[in-house]
Amino acid sequence: MSKKIAAFGEVMMRLQVPGFELLTQANTLNYSFSGTGVNVVSALANYGHEGYLVSVLPANPLGDAAASYLGKLGILKKFIARNGDYLGHYFLETGFGFRPSRVTYSNRLESSFNTAPEAIYDFAKIAEDVDVVHFCGITLAMNDAARNNIQNFARAVKDNNGVVVFDCNYRPALWGEGGYEKAKPYYEALLSSADIVLMNEKDALHVLGMKTDKTGRQEQLEELIPVVAEKYSIQVIAGTHRTINEDQTHSLQGFLYKNDTFTFSETLTFTVHDRIGAGDAFTSGIIHGEMEGFSSEETIAFAVTAGALKHTTVGDTPVLLDKDIFESMSVKGGDIKR
Amino acid sequence: MSKKIAAFGEVMMRLQVPGFELLTQANTLNYSFSGTGVNVVSALANYGHEGYLVSVLPANPLGDAAASYLGKLGILKKFIARNGDYLGHYFLETGFGFRPSRVTYSNRLESSFNTAPEAIYDFAKIAEDVDVVHFCGITLAMNDAARNNIQNFARAVKDNNGVVVFDCNYRPALWGEGGYEKAKPYYEALLSSADIVLMNEKDALHVLGMKTDKTGRQEQLEELIPVVAEKYSIQVIAGTHRTINEDQTHSLQGFLYKNDTFTFSETLTFTVHDRIGAGDAFTSGIIHGEMEGFSSEETIAFAVTAGALKHTTVGDTPVLLDKDIFESMSVKGGDIKR
Amino acid sequence: MSKKIAAFGEVMMRLQVPGFELLTQANTLNYSFSGTGVNVVSALANYGHEGYLVSVLPANPLGDAAASYLGKLGILKKFIARNGDYLGHYFLETGFGFRPSRVTYSNRLESSFNTAPEAIYDFAKIAEDVDVVHFCGITLAMNDAARNNIQNFARAVKDNNGVVVFDCNYRPALWGEGGYEKAKPYYEALLSSADIVLMNEKDALHVLGMKTDKTGRQEQLEELIPVVAEKYSIQVIAGTHRTINEDQTHSLQGFLYKNDTFTFSETLTFTVHDRIGAGDAFTSGIIHGEMEGFSSEETIAFAVTAGALKHTTVGDTPVLLDKDIFESMSVKGGDIKR
Amino acid sequence: MSKKIAAFGEVMMRLQVPGFELLTQANTLNYSFSGTGVNVVSALANYGHEGYLVSVLPANPLGDAAASYLGKLGILKKFIARNGDYLGHYFLETGFGFRPSRVTYSNRLESSFNTAPEAIYDFAKIAEDVDVVHFCGITLAMNDAARNNIQNFARAVKDNNGVVVFDCNYRPALWGEGGYEKAKPYYEALLSSADIVLMNEKDALHVLGMKTDKTGRQEQLEELIPVVAEKYSIQVIAGTHRTINEDQTHSLQGFLYKNDTFTFSETLTFTVHDRIGAGDAFTSGIIHGEMEGFSSEETIAFAVTAGALKHTTVGDTPVLLDKDIFESMSVKGGDIKR
Amino acid sequence: MSKKIAAFGEVMMRLQVPGFELLTQANTLNYSFSGTGVNVVSALANYGHEGYLVSVLPANPLGDAAASYLGKLGILKKFIARNGDYLGHYFLETGFGFRPSRVTYSNRLESSFNTAPEAIYDFAKIAEDVDVVHFCGITLAMNDAARNNIQNFARAVKDNNGVVVFDCNYRPALWGEGGYEKAKPYYEALLSSADIVLMNEKDALHVLGMKTDKTGRQEQLEELIPVVAEKYSIQVIAGTHRTINEDQTHSLQGFLYKNDTFTFSETLTFTVHDRIGAGDAFTSGIIHGEMEGFSSEETIAFAVTAGALKHTTVGDTPVLLDKDIFESMSVKGGDIKR
Amino acid sequence: MSKKIAAFGEVMMRLQVPGFELLTQANTLNYSFSGTGVNVVSALANYGHEGYLVSVLPANPLGDAAASYLGKLGILKKFIARNGDYLGHYFLETGFGFRPSRVTYSNRLESSFNTAPEAIYDFAKIAEDVDVVHFCGITLAMNDAARNNIQNFARAVKDNNGVVVFDCNYRPALWGEGGYEKAKPYYEALLSSADIVLMNEKDALHVLGMKTDKTGRQEQLEELIPVVAEKYSIQVIAGTHRTINEDQTHSLQGFLYKNDTFTFSETLTFTVHDRIGAGDAFTSGIIHGEMEGFSSEETIAFAVTAGALKHTTVGDTPVLLDKDIFESMSVKGGDIKR
Repeated sequence: MSKKIAAFGEVMMRLQVPGFELLTQANTLNYSFSGTGVNVVSALANYGHEGYLVSVLPANPLGDAAASYLGKLGILKKFIARNGDYLGHYFLETGFGFRPSRVTYSNRLESSFNTAPEAIYDFAKIAEDVDVVHFCGITLAMNDAARNNIQNFARAVKDNNGVVVFDCNYRPALWGEGGYEKAKPYYEALLSSADIVLMNEKDALHVLGMKTDKTGRQEQLEELIPVVAEKYSIQVIAGTHRTINEDQTHSLQGFLYKNDTFTFSETLTFTVHDRIGAGDAFTSGIIHGEMEGFSSEETIAFAVTAGALKHTTVGDTPVLLDKDIFESMSVKGGDIKR
Repeated sequence: MSKKIAAFGEVMMRLQVPGFELLTQANTLNYSFSGTGVNVVSALANYGHEGYLVSVLPANPLGDAAASYLGKLGILKKFIARNGDYLGHYFLETGFGFRPSRVTYSNRLESSFNTAPEAIYDFAKIAEDVDVVHFCGITLAMNDAARNNIQNFARAVKDNNGVVVFDCNYRPALWGEGGYEKAKPYYEALLSSADIVLMNEKDALHVLGMKTDKTGRQEQLEELIPVVAEKYSIQVIAGTHRTINEDQTHSLQGFLYKNDTFTFSETLTFTVHDRIGAGDAFTSGIIHGEMEGFSSEETIAFAVTAGALKHTTVGDTPVLLDKDIFESMSVKGGDIKR
Repeated sequence: MSKKIAAFGEVMMRLQVPGFELLTQANTLNYSFSGTGVNVVSALANYGHEGYLVSVLPANPLGDAAASYLGKLGILKKFIARNGDYLGHYFLETGFGFRPSRVTYSNRLESSFNTAPEAIYDFAKIAEDVDVVHFCGITLAMNDAARNNIQNFARAVKDNNGVVVFDCNYRPALWGEGGYEKAKPYYEALLSSADIVLMNEKDALHVLGMKTDKTGRQEQLEELIPVVAEKYSIQVIAGTHRTINEDQTHSLQGFLYKNDTFTFSETLTFTVHDRIGAGDAFTSGIIHGEMEGFSSEETIAFAVTAGALKHTTVGDTPVLLDKDIFESMSVKGGDIKR
Repeated sequence: MSKKIAAFGEVMMRLQVPGFELLTQANTLNYSFSGTGVNVVSALANYGHEGYLVSVLPANPLGDAAASYLGKLGILKKFIARNGDYLGHYFLETGFGFRPSRVTYSNRLESSFNTAPEAIYDFAKIAEDVDVVHFCGITLAMNDAARNNIQNFARAVKDNNGVVVFDCNYRPALWGEGGYEKAKPYYEALLSSADIVLMNEKDALHVLGMKTDKTGRQEQLEELIPVVAEKYSIQVIAGTHRTINEDQTHSLQGFLYKNDTFTFSETLTFTVHDRIGAGDAFTSGIIHGEMEGFSSEETIAFAVTAGALKHTTVGDTPVLLDKDIFESMSVKGGDIKR
Repeated sequence: MSKKIAAFGEVMMRLQVPGFELLTQANTLNYSFSGTGVNVVSALANYGHEGYLVSVLPANPLGDAAASYLGKLGILKKFIARNGDYLGHYFLETGFGFRPSRVTYSNRLESSFNTAPEAIYDFAKIAEDVDVVHFCGITLAMNDAARNNIQNFARAVKDNNGVVVFDCNYRPALWGEGGYEKAKPYYEALLSSADIVLMNEKDALHVLGMKTDKTGRQEQLEELIPVVAEKYSIQVIAGTHRTINEDQTHSLQGFLYKNDTFTFSETLTFTVHDRIGAGDAFTSGIIHGEMEGFSSEETIAFAVTAGALKHTTVGDTPVLLDKDIFESMSVKGGDIKR
Repeated sequence: MSKKIAAFGEVMMRLQVPGFELLTQANTLNYSFSGTGVNVVSALANYGHEGYLVSVLPANPLGDAAASYLGKLGILKKFIARNGDYLGHYFLETGFGFRPSRVTYSNRLESSFNTAPEAIYDFAKIAEDVDVVHFCGITLAMNDAARNNIQNFARAVKDNNGVVVFDCNYRPALWGEGGYEKAKPYYEALLSSADIVLMNEKDALHVLGMKTDKTGRQEQLEELIPVVAEKYSIQVIAGTHRTINEDQTHSLQGFLYKNDTFTFSETLTFTVHDRIGAGDAFTSGIIHGEMEGFSSEETIAFAVTAGALKHTTVGDTPVLLDKDIFESMSVKGGDIKR
């Protein structure tokens, strides 16, 4: 059954050098607008839900362009405020083969989202209107105002019996040195409110500072995730293991931990067109499965296929419909559809 | 020795989303004009024959653009009439890796070709002027007028001792439900007139309703094709088996059945840029080999190489010269030519 | 005060040759989606209203692309159904100087909109939900189903005390020979329901068959429009006179007839980038002025400026905000804004 | 009545910087293939004649690309030989306003055309096959081989009672210093064979060294052209006067001198998109009028309109059909055609 | 005689929507790097001088791209430091006709240039190495560090008997409210060091707070400039008056005040492709004329032509050579150069 | 320690069909400027050296564009003269999979570089100014003037105790039939002056006519290179072995022979975006390692990684910084860097 699902997060402008040139070589950029929240609710809109973004955009042509783009992605905009002057953006130079892609950020701390006054959001009202809210570790890394907002918003959602989704998504570059210690209390607070959490054993080890004697990542996962679920009373924990193979293909396996049980997906192996946003595609699949009441097997298969397919499309934001994902789950490596 | 070779078929406009975006994402399209007949005679023009298309185009800017494009492909246009208002077209979204390409057709039944009055063609005159005429199962699927025209044209060719080539090319989507039964009599009629036929065991099984106890496609092929050749008095039957490999490369093996003998090509394995039109490239190779008096070994090697090379070029229509194909037959996996 | 404003009409795909090449010369097309209803409600969304389109799109990638594009234009989609297989489209070759632009249509009569079953729309429900509905003479020209739908929808709007806007927009090519006589009864029926009508003296003379001894278009306008307003009990009639000057600039003057009084705008003269959709921009200005309670002077100045500015932007659909239009009304011929 | 019309001349590759950037700024070029002969016979093919080019192209991918492009332009290729290694080309940087366009040539003297052995052409055979042959002063400027070929070809045409057209087209940069004296004998020889000549008073004064006391160009024209016609027994002389106006529009007036009578066209004034090839468009109009038996008034009106319209389209080569030109002759400064 | 000429200023990234679309419509941007200092010394490099930029760029791919672009512009980079993280940039939406262009800035106050520690520049060393240094009012508007740097650098130049050029270039948006009062002391300090100043009567009236009874701008100019020259002991003052005409052409007249005498250029009228950076082109012409010892008449004619021609090329930065400017001074409104 | 490093060689314009189309299919070209010398010194500039090109460009817009492009590549231009009229160029059609890339040259023998009078270079002066000069077998193949210049320049370098680098780079197409014999004396003369030589066993066998009983290329290399080093007193010989694998990946192993010892790199295997210029990237790595005093292990690892990375970037010319290469040496097959 279709739900009302919101995400709280920043809209970023992505400025990508076309093809495989560097910024020193090219003279045009492709632009689009994305962000973890954007990606997740756009995907959920593609699956038939009402997707809302809770965010702030500048009241200028860049803000207009971002808002227009959100409309193109099927995102409903009634919880988007206009304030401030700047929109965060990043430049993307696409790698090829063993040459990695390169991301250069603008000074996003002065963005409309990161400088918004708290009073700009009416969290109580939004929490009444929606069923699910998605939060992300990237926002948590921004500044105290953002962290405050997340806490207030999450509390309001719980007060309204809404579902809190939290994608741990720890980014070392954003937290800086000593980041794990700085981050831990905020992560713990949000985990305690969360119903569905996206993470794997690395978050448990590094951010939450847990210990294990195991050395393989699979063993670590199987030991630590149940501990996390219990400690913070989390209903569903899901995540992926990615492998980059020698021939530049990637492999992805997903897991879902629920009711004291792990469910693992097949390991999918595929060639990669655009890797950014693949985690958000996986997240959207988990939320969709849980909201629609899929079995754990169905949910994790749907989510990992959504994640894998994201690598085959252009841009950060998932663009395929649920029927495309189901079709891909039943057929392998197809020819033209005509 | 260079021949005059005509094809009877519709010209379609191909509107392709550039790169790997979907129609929901992009805002430009690349366009070109193709069709089975276009592809075959353009290839044959590249090999030194005079290639004619027998078709109808609208008398408007789209028809002008199609005609100009045929000229670019080296096709002679004296058998192309202008009538009606519309040109069939299709939108192509290019797949990536395990995400398949997607084709969306316009309402082509109202096209100039599919609504042309029979009197627009002077088949008797054309049959006098040319040595070979190519027909295709796609045209056979259109409507009664098209089927009538094919029959009349094929009869005229035979009356002039011309060569009739028939590419079975059964498309389930065009024939709809119960399509095999609907199609069978038309296929049988045309097979009976045909000198060179493009097909494989699937056409024998499904369209012609033949039976076999064999299960492997190779065994089925070797059992059924001789039966077809005998039953319909066909001199040459040729076709391919395609395999889509796990790493997204394709493999192609061709066969030629003539004088009660099968000749098989090597199996070529290659990466794929554009798969549409590969069958037509193979067909053009078979016709060229037969017209030039190649040995069966040469013909099938040339045809399967032409088919494989088609996957490495842009667009539906083969664009390489015969010397390029011969060169590829003698060298494998080359470096830059400078 | 912001209103809920719907338009009833077809979505067309616009396939434009970039730059000034002909279809015979180019190999790429820019595409977008528009239509009179699309243009009008998108503009009204830019001015702060809720803009809805009442239409039908095919359930395929073209329909998805159109829906996504409507979202980009800020149009709300809850009254858009999915049905049928085709989307009408047209090819646009841009003129230069004294060489006119050229439009080639596809067979739009088979489009999803023009083949939709009447039951697909719940006009009664929509009429309850919105304040204003816009109809257009282009839809009236399509077929009996479309004409029926318009009548039923208009009646439902009046039953709910909504505002009916009718843009006469007579297109000779769509009605064919003897078109004026064919069209007249449908026009009269809709004029009788309409509160706001877009037309000028030509519609009165040709479609409604009125007579006048005057020969200048200004005199004819001043004689005939009051007669129309009275005969069909129309509150507001507005329209424009366009002049194409020798130096290829265009001049536009708007009029508004209301409460037995004509109000004329200044005559604006400007260079033209894209002329298609200028009438819709003017219409959106009239609706906005009337809904916001502007004086007649303000309304006609706003509308004619919106219309003129449309000529300076790309595409059929107005893209400027109301503040841009007000700014242009107060400043002439500006330099860079930085 | 449709004729067989050939032109003798070089095919050049045009490499144009897109937009208004300089070669120092851009990184892409648009390419096409043209030349005076190409332009003239392509236009005549658009008007319903059979247009042939007599030329030589290299047997390499550039030659293939040129040949394919000629096919796109509707030119028949049976008189095109393949020989040599190079294709002449030029780089075009487009001017804007009072900044002029800039052309940079490659070393075209080594081109296939300019190094072709004389024996490559079977002029006698070609002259039998065609009704009209067009020659141009640019070819005359190349080298002795080219000049020899022109003389032989022109003689063969006259021997077959064909029509010789000669476009004087004197280019100072090609003849170098003392060019007028060098050129005169070749011009005189060809004028003596010619039936239709394109020139104006400047050619008479500078190349032929004629004298006049008149100072205005109109007076000079009216004095000198009849003398030229008489001296060299030329049936038809036609040409234009161009004025570049202060607002960067151009004005063009054509004249036709035949049967001792001047006929002048209207002076057309228009904005300019691409000026190169306008003379060839005019020439094609004169040839068409003469071949179709138009009155002098019709011929010169058609030719000057063809010339003016050429300025509004992209590329060197005229791309409009005769019906477009007639339509433009009857309508001025139109709106969209839909 | 060729000089060593440096400019002190920020490098900005210009991100321009191609064509005439808005940021809400497009999905690509053209990028380049410019700035007043960049523009001036690049032009002077085109005229044969050694042009240096004194600036700071971030040590990341954007800084690399900017540095590479400066190399493309012919600017020598030995006085460019790498420090900080950000590069200022602005988005440009191009106007059409009476719709103005629109500039949206990023948060440039955090740019590498605007946050550079003073110690990063060795002004004494640079002042020894170069003959002329150009400063600009835009840098003066940034922050105290920038203002300090300008003062220190200007002093060092004077200590080495170098030439100080100051372009007043007052930008209201950068100084904010009460800007004139804030700016005045900094302007006065720099004017006192300056040898060549770019300004007109508006700077005298507004920034310097001078009074006049005159109302016409020409009269005001003639009254106030001599007072400024005297008061601050300035050798050369130059500037322009721009008029935007009704047909969207611009007119430009330059003046040069030197040795108590005004010299005025012709008024040039031209169509505009890109207006940004025209002032810098004019400035470069004044500097070139003064350094080369042109007469005042030659200098002002060269400068105003350089400024006018800038409007006909792409981008902020002048790209023509001195020979192009001289050629334009001697010829008006030319045709193709070939 | 940063050095002054010059290369002597021609600048070529590269005109590349974008994507995978042939010249017969496309209508745009991407252009850039390269050449062995350009590639090598640009790479060395990226590694912190001063890179100079010694060459001649035409004094026209193509020469200006080439010069501007060299500036973009970070190359210092004080040893570049302007003379002659033409710039050599080549057209590149990019292969796909087993279809090879195709290069078509213009008539470069008439280029400014290849027709330059010897007096245009002041080799003695340049040799005083720089530490290292790079020569290449391609220049040696041009004509006697080029060969003379190389000998004179190399002698001048040795007279100044500079380092002579020689890349053997034998191109059969340039030397024609009997080329090895023609080339041998010139190669031997230059080898005798050289300190660092780029070659492998093929050059020893074919150009130098050496003999061996070994059949494997590795054995041949190990036998012949020491002989060459001894015979011509060469300090450092380096080169690569390339393997094209079945899956279209390439493998590259480098060797360095110095002080009687071979050092071999790892064999790197990678997917290929653009193979042209890979040898120059390898050469630049060898020069950098030798100039910086790297160990042989470091030098060959750096050089082969630079060569392999070149295949992953766009264009002939290496564009990565030394830090990028070091990073790649320490990490394999990375993910996004953000």
